Amino acid sequence: MNATRHFIAGTIGAVMLACAAGMFLAAAKPEVKPVRYGSVIGLRAEKLDEYKKLHAAIWPEVAKRIRDVNIRNYSIYLRKLPDGQYYLFSYFEYVGTDFEADMKRMADDPDTKRWWKVTDPCQKPLDDRQPKEWWASMDEVFHQD
Amino acid sequence: MNATRHFIAGTIGAVMLACAAGMFLAAAKPEVKPVRYGSVIGLRAEKLDEYKKLHAAIWPEVAKRIRDVNIRNYSIYLRKLPDGQYYLFSYFEYVGTDFEADMKRMADDPDTKRWWKVTDPCQKPLDDRQPKEWWASMDEVFHQD
Repeated sequence: MNATRHFIAGTIGAVMLACAAGMFLAAAKPEVKPVRYGSVIGLRAEKLDEYKKLHAAIWPEVAKRIRDVNIRNYSIYLRKLPDGQYYLFSYFEYVGTDFEADMKRMADDPDTKRWWKVTDPCQKPLDDRQPKEWWASMDEVFHQD
Repeated sequence: MNATRHFIAGTIGAVMLACAAGMFLAAAKPEVKPVRYGSVIGLRAEKLDEYKKLHAAIWPEVAKRIRDVNIRNYSIYLRKLPDGQYYLFSYFEYVGTDFEADMKRMADDPDTKRWWKVTDPCQKPLDDRQPKEWWASMDEVFHQD
């Protein structure tokens, strides 16, 4: 009788422990604090439709690689500005620990290379961008979580 | 003996139930799915420093109101574009359920009004913005979580 009781109590105890561990894991967010990136690039007026169509349904292998290299919450916006030119503004959050290595992994990916062969000719990078940049980085002047 | 056993089993059962409820609450995210907003506005070159300084330390009452009206993850970026003009690009996520009402609450707030009296003269809104807009909204052409 005592053995049965101990067995039941032991089982229930184990379940409770698993339960507590589950709660702890659900509460703890193991992801790194994101680093935000805002960038800008020109978009050729004659490529407007092509660019929009491509991005309304990006290739699954490209989407997967974006995720693999720790990019999250990635948006691209479009606006015609007072100079009559179109510009694209991108915002994303990087949740990895080695941005340069991850960007290299993206640039080395054959699918991403094929994708950029299609999207690059749509874009018109800024002349005063930093060396190695395609999209020109912008300065963050304000942030509030 | 039986009564003791029932009491122990009952107590353990109740704790497990509370445990499960806790896990459920931890897993369920009660916040509304955010709606993203990207906007652009010009910044007067002679106001560059003033605008940066203001936004490096925004007034606590303005920060509080931004949060109160359900704006989250709010960033403003700055870049000089090929036309030689400076532009500000904003990105934020709205987590409320009535955007118009919340924006009205912000516009009616005396502290925010005082803040805008200082920041508006720094900015140069786009001529082709929508009626009622100050910052001109941009079109989202891509998003990936």
